[in-house]
Amino acid sequence: MSARNWFWYIEFDTPTHAHMKGLKRIVYRHRSKYQDIVVAESFDFGLVLILDGKTQSSQKDEFIYHEALVHPAMILHGSPRRVLVLGGGEGATLREVLKYPTVEEAIMVDIDEDVVRISREYLRFMNEGVFEDRRVKLVIGDALDYVFSTKDKYDVVIADLSDPLEEGPAYKLYTVEFYRRVAEIIGDTGVFVTQATSPTNTPRTHAVIYRTVREVFRYTAYYHIFIPSFEAVWGFVIASNGRDPRKLESEHVDRELHRNNIKTRFYDGEAHKHMFSVPKHLREYIESVDEVSTVEKPIYMPA
Amino acid sequence: MSARNWFWYIEFDTPTHAHMKGLKRIVYRHRSKYQDIVVAESFDFGLVLILDGKTQSSQKDEFIYHEALVHPAMILHGSPRRVLVLGGGEGATLREVLKYPTVEEAIMVDIDEDVVRISREYLRFMNEGVFEDRRVKLVIGDALDYVFSTKDKYDVVIADLSDPLEEGPAYKLYTVEFYRRVAEIIGDTGVFVTQATSPTNTPRTHAVIYRTVREVFRYTAYYHIFIPSFEAVWGFVIASNGRDPRKLESEHVDRELHRNNIKTRFYDGEAHKHMFSVPKHLREYIESVDEVSTVEKPIYMPA
Amino acid sequence: MSARNWFWYIEFDTPTHAHMKGLKRIVYRHRSKYQDIVVAESFDFGLVLILDGKTQSSQKDEFIYHEALVHPAMILHGSPRRVLVLGGGEGATLREVLKYPTVEEAIMVDIDEDVVRISREYLRFMNEGVFEDRRVKLVIGDALDYVFSTKDKYDVVIADLSDPLEEGPAYKLYTVEFYRRVAEIIGDTGVFVTQATSPTNTPRTHAVIYRTVREVFRYTAYYHIFIPSFEAVWGFVIASNGRDPRKLESEHVDRELHRNNIKTRFYDGEAHKHMFSVPKHLREYIESVDEVSTVEKPIYMPA
Amino acid sequence: MSARNWFWYIEFDTPTHAHMKGLKRIVYRHRSKYQDIVVAESFDFGLVLILDGKTQSSQKDEFIYHEALVHPAMILHGSPRRVLVLGGGEGATLREVLKYPTVEEAIMVDIDEDVVRISREYLRFMNEGVFEDRRVKLVIGDALDYVFSTKDKYDVVIADLSDPLEEGPAYKLYTVEFYRRVAEIIGDTGVFVTQATSPTNTPRTHAVIYRTVREVFRYTAYYHIFIPSFEAVWGFVIASNGRDPRKLESEHVDRELHRNNIKTRFYDGEAHKHMFSVPKHLREYIESVDEVSTVEKPIYMPA
Repeated sequence: MSARNWFWYIEFDTPTHAHMKGLKRIVYRHRSKYQDIVVAESFDFGLVLILDGKTQSSQKDEFIYHEALVHPAMILHGSPRRVLVLGGGEGATLREVLKYPTVEEAIMVDIDEDVVRISREYLRFMNEGVFEDRRVKLVIGDALDYVFSTKDKYDVVIADLSDPLEEGPAYKLYTVEFYRRVAEIIGDTGVFVTQATSPTNTPRTHAVIYRTVREVFRYTAYYHIFIPSFEAVWGFVIASNGRDPRKLESEHVDRELHRNNIKTRFYDGEAHKHMFSVPKHLREYIESVDEVSTVEKPIYMPA
Repeated sequence: MSARNWFWYIEFDTPTHAHMKGLKRIVYRHRSKYQDIVVAESFDFGLVLILDGKTQSSQKDEFIYHEALVHPAMILHGSPRRVLVLGGGEGATLREVLKYPTVEEAIMVDIDEDVVRISREYLRFMNEGVFEDRRVKLVIGDALDYVFSTKDKYDVVIADLSDPLEEGPAYKLYTVEFYRRVAEIIGDTGVFVTQATSPTNTPRTHAVIYRTVREVFRYTAYYHIFIPSFEAVWGFVIASNGRDPRKLESEHVDRELHRNNIKTRFYDGEAHKHMFSVPKHLREYIESVDEVSTVEKPIYMPA
Repeated sequence: MSARNWFWYIEFDTPTHAHMKGLKRIVYRHRSKYQDIVVAESFDFGLVLILDGKTQSSQKDEFIYHEALVHPAMILHGSPRRVLVLGGGEGATLREVLKYPTVEEAIMVDIDEDVVRISREYLRFMNEGVFEDRRVKLVIGDALDYVFSTKDKYDVVIADLSDPLEEGPAYKLYTVEFYRRVAEIIGDTGVFVTQATSPTNTPRTHAVIYRTVREVFRYTAYYHIFIPSFEAVWGFVIASNGRDPRKLESEHVDRELHRNNIKTRFYDGEAHKHMFSVPKHLREYIESVDEVSTVEKPIYMPA
Repeated sequence: MSARNWFWYIEFDTPTHAHMKGLKRIVYRHRSKYQDIVVAESFDFGLVLILDGKTQSSQKDEFIYHEALVHPAMILHGSPRRVLVLGGGEGATLREVLKYPTVEEAIMVDIDEDVVRISREYLRFMNEGVFEDRRVKLVIGDALDYVFSTKDKYDVVIADLSDPLEEGPAYKLYTVEFYRRVAEIIGDTGVFVTQATSPTNTPRTHAVIYRTVREVFRYTAYYHIFIPSFEAVWGFVIASNGRDPRKLESEHVDRELHRNNIKTRFYDGEAHKHMFSVPKHLREYIESVDEVSTVEKPIYMPA
């Protein structure tokens, strides 16, 4: 297309909508037991981790996604000591978790050890030092099994999972049965947060995840943020039985970040307000959907 | 790419970053005196107006852009009677302006009458009834000339212009000289708002526009919103010598919309809060740029 | 991609190999009873007829395909009076047939009258005057039915059909049962020619068509030519029980064209020699395939 | 585009015509002193060598290009002993040259030693054993300098050079001054052959190369062949002062290949006939062009 480039990564949102990222190199490609793993170097987003053809993280803006996923839940809790991360093989979710001085133990459960290995080798900016931190416990295995068999309690559970694809193993991690079990292991004071797909690309999936979490928890909120390398806004759902995320004020966010001496690039009180204030048409749509995802009848991403 | 589609509109953000929209038809194509004008029917965004290869508006989400551009300025003013729209040939900016019962006169100045004609013929959802409204005065001509020669005063001036391209005629409409003249014609109580390019695609351009407006006005604010068909967040700058946009509360927005019986799809108090709360890294970047665009040394969009 | 263009027609040869043609316009699009019919205006190939996403003919080079399909068969026969064209809705195959002064009757059987109508309206360069010629008889119907029910004899039968897709109706027109019936209606002196897909894109399909025709006729030959708008070489199979196409000399071709006062752009003795001289690797491959397509077990294009 | 692939190499023939090859990997990328060198692994063509964004050779079909370039010249000469290859860094041209038992010395002059090194490392199927052959002499340097300064005579000179781009160093190697010097170093019995760009993509460039060679030599011929990975037919020009390439019969080609016990995949008598028989419209166009490329006023590839 230009004198500079002739290699392209083309990612489809729908069969009739796609994005093209110019590539310098395909740094690494490997088919693991679970997925096609690629690390590519793009012109506009730096290194990009691509799983089964979908952008997971980019060097340029992974801080936005990971800060948005982790900090509201940590601050809502107030003094998290034990944190459970489901998925998150790149290590950047752990990186954000470990910024909190109250954290004593952070368990990460990822099914694909190749993602962890490749991220440690090629994407060190996402996990520098994390896997060597003595507070971290890495479990290679199925998040579903882990959550149903654990006998421990957790202050915060963070679901950094792949999307609920029909043919994929993750869809059960978006059902009411799973959320009920999460509620048990976090108790009345714990906080749960999950990535919840894009409210603009796949609004129904996003809304059903929210509705399903709301079925279980006393307090639930949805929020979203634009991620340039995803070429879309991305959604999250946060919930708790003891603490109301909708009441989290931006001044409190700033105070807590300062008190804990936490350095962020994207997240602060104003970013929090931005994410949790949802425009009218999205709000009306999300709140109009009244469908709960169950193991019997789960929600999937549209093909 | 799929059984459904083989025609694509490919739009470049940079030489190494592009977006592909699947097309059903190219409904209309015409080279006017100023630009290549296309109306295409896409699968995912409905009808799309494309000027010189850049998406201007889509049927699916034009309401977001136009509500975001118009309503904060109108509500900040409080009781606008005379409104000047620069550009905005599709008519949708006027459509939003005319929702305010206080408006007595709305003047629109667009350089390309073909855009107006084609929008009236093919994009009626954007301008239904607008050009027949007795309050509207349509001027085909150069916005720069109009602003410098007008002897009238205006309550609100809305710059819905094409981007400041080096080879284009619009770049002077983003300079400090132009903004000084706008300040004169709106006086102490008037409000000015301009589209300000994308804070993520072209952050420097966005920041310089903000900095340049700030050079002239006592109160200035930047805000942005995600537009799906633009595949990006889009930025705006609002300013006044008498009214501080940063002090506009979401409760006041809701109250004013209700008092004036204004129907919106995207915009309300919460959307306002979302747009005006800017995440930390963008805020820090925008406020770090200290360059004013002048006729001598204007800011351009990067090629 | 360039200052000139942003609309593209993308055609796939395989799921991992495609061609992009820049478009000025989509002149016409219509879903007929049988297929998606598009007339598009491209920058490099002029008007292009596209059926179900596949290029059928382009203004720039349709003469190559149609001359290559028609003239070898007509000249091999020597004095064709009754010619049957199967498919060929654009009219250009008829156009070439009618150049022969011996032709008294030319019957064309096409299943989709919308293709004929649209070609007459938008692609007149392909059929100017043809459908008004008193020698032409146009039948809208199924070529298979026609061939099995006709009681007439034909000097030349030309199969200008769509490819043998698994889900399509044309695949039976590439089976040994069909060719046996063709042999009956052309008798010992008649000539049959068929388009035979691309020997480089779909070599097995091409080879099976050849092998299947060879099962029926005494003399059979394959030949091919590069068609720029197809982005590939295209293959044909010619056969007869009385006349050997391999013995057709280029001097004879030139003499016959001259004797009949036939004007061609692509085809002459040297073009004939070019097409019928097949490079070693293709020849060896085609002759190595020993599979006959039958109604029970037909050959399809690979998906 | 499909479940299998999301990485694409997009190569432009013109600003409005391009080809997409699905990639498994970008095996190697390096910017040498002269060009951007890439070895990529494609789904449909195996390994592909790409210089400055243009396909040079693919694993699947490089034998067609290299056999077409080398064998007609070698057989026309009859008993070549000293052969000069200009360009040809991959080594495959040498590989074909060395098949002739009469060859005593084969000198290859390539400007970019990185191409040679990378081909030896990643594209061994193109040069297995070639650079270790005691008959081969490898010169890293400018072909123009070599040809003007050599004091030797050569039986066959083969120009396997990059296209005559305006900004490139190769365009002087397509001028009449260069061909005059080639005529001197091959004498009356020598044979010269050059790649001559695509007669369908860049017909004028192809025709001017032919016309320019014809200005110098007594006997000159053009020929071409379809190369799938080039997505086009590719042209060559062959010339001599003592031997007429147009008189080379296919029976003689087959006899010579057999006599010298030369194994080919593409080339034989029939392939020769195919290449040297040029369809009417190309022949008429090529012969109509009457422009000679000179150092003062060279022919370039169209941008």
